[in-house]
Amino acid sequence: MPQPIEFYFDFTSPYGYLASEKIDELAARFQRQVKWRPFLMGVALQATGAPVLTKVPLKGDYALRDFARSARFLQVPYAHPARFPLATQAAARAYYWWHDRDCQAARTFAHSVFRAYFVEGSDVSDLGVLLELAERLGADRDELSAALQSQALKDRLKAECEAAIARGVFGSPYIIVDGEPFFGVDRLPQVEHWLASGGF
Amino acid sequence: MPQPIEFYFDFTSPYGYLASEKIDELAARFQRQVKWRPFLMGVALQATGAPVLTKVPLKGDYALRDFARSARFLQVPYAHPARFPLATQAAARAYYWWHDRDCQAARTFAHSVFRAYFVEGSDVSDLGVLLELAERLGADRDELSAALQSQALKDRLKAECEAAIARGVFGSPYIIVDGEPFFGVDRLPQVEHWLASGGF
Repeated sequence: MPQPIEFYFDFTSPYGYLASEKIDELAARFQRQVKWRPFLMGVALQATGAPVLTKVPLKGDYALRDFARSARFLQVPYAHPARFPLATQAAARAYYWWHDRDCQAARTFAHSVFRAYFVEGSDVSDLGVLLELAERLGADRDELSAALQSQALKDRLKAECEAAIARGVFGSPYIIVDGEPFFGVDRLPQVEHWLASGGF
Repeated sequence: MPQPIEFYFDFTSPYGYLASEKIDELAARFQRQVKWRPFLMGVALQATGAPVLTKVPLKGDYALRDFARSARFLQVPYAHPARFPLATQAAARAYYWWHDRDCQAARTFAHSVFRAYFVEGSDVSDLGVLLELAERLGADRDELSAALQSQALKDRLKAECEAAIARGVFGSPYIIVDGEPFFGVDRLPQVEHWLASGGF
């Protein structure tokens, strides 16, 4: 049985969001599973020395236009959030908390966080907003709230980020298929070709 | 009659080379012309503060793999050159020298420079190599050699680079279709969709 596709992303990444709306369906066409792995791009950006994309002269203005156009191209709803980028530690920790209990529910929560931010413009760095989203999907608000304060969950996310960097992940989305890395939602056609051909 | 598509590139850019092998054919399917505009990425990189891609930690190793894989994906021959990147002032100046005389011959020369570098591994920063390539395509070697020393041709390239930056060009390839900018060979599917739909 083939290994699952690994999907690394940051909840504040527009291209990560776009990929999140496509990756499972793409993988399913090739009878493949996807492991979702949120991480903190800030950690990777420290490693590469890269600034936040939208703050780069020239490139920043282009990026804002490209986020929206790429969303239309992929037919995914998108409204660039007024607050951008956001801190995503809490969202990523909540994901891993849920993942250890129910990995399918965690995926539904991840979609809900992405859509709340990139469609409705909700501030998903806000703990209240996150707890509200989680509660609506059936989480125990008090239990999650307590877990988010715990050192164990902080350590868990730290370990996931370190593991991501160790695998070479430097941005979002970063997709690994049978050891082959693909960076960017614009690499999905190559991912598809790779899955169809068993490499090329 | 629609405006030509503008195609900005640097002769040392692998993704620029890949786009150069596809852009004219793509445009022709929509009865569009392409204006080729070599520029110096070093000037744009100064503006954006970005380092050379292959020297970025993590991202550099990925880039080398992605150049070759993207070439296979697009079915374009590619062998990453031992000397990379190269200074491309002379190649770009030779292009503009030729362009002012015969724009079609200049395009053939541009293909020849790209392929010499990215297929045969020739050092196209070397004046002798460039003059040889030009002579084989029918240029007067002495005339081109003299022109490459002239202030007029240096000023011409400088003006082209300044014009590119003024239009927002920050990397290679950078393609403008009816005012809409597309960065990267991976945006060719969006360029195609744009041409087919008149915007989206």
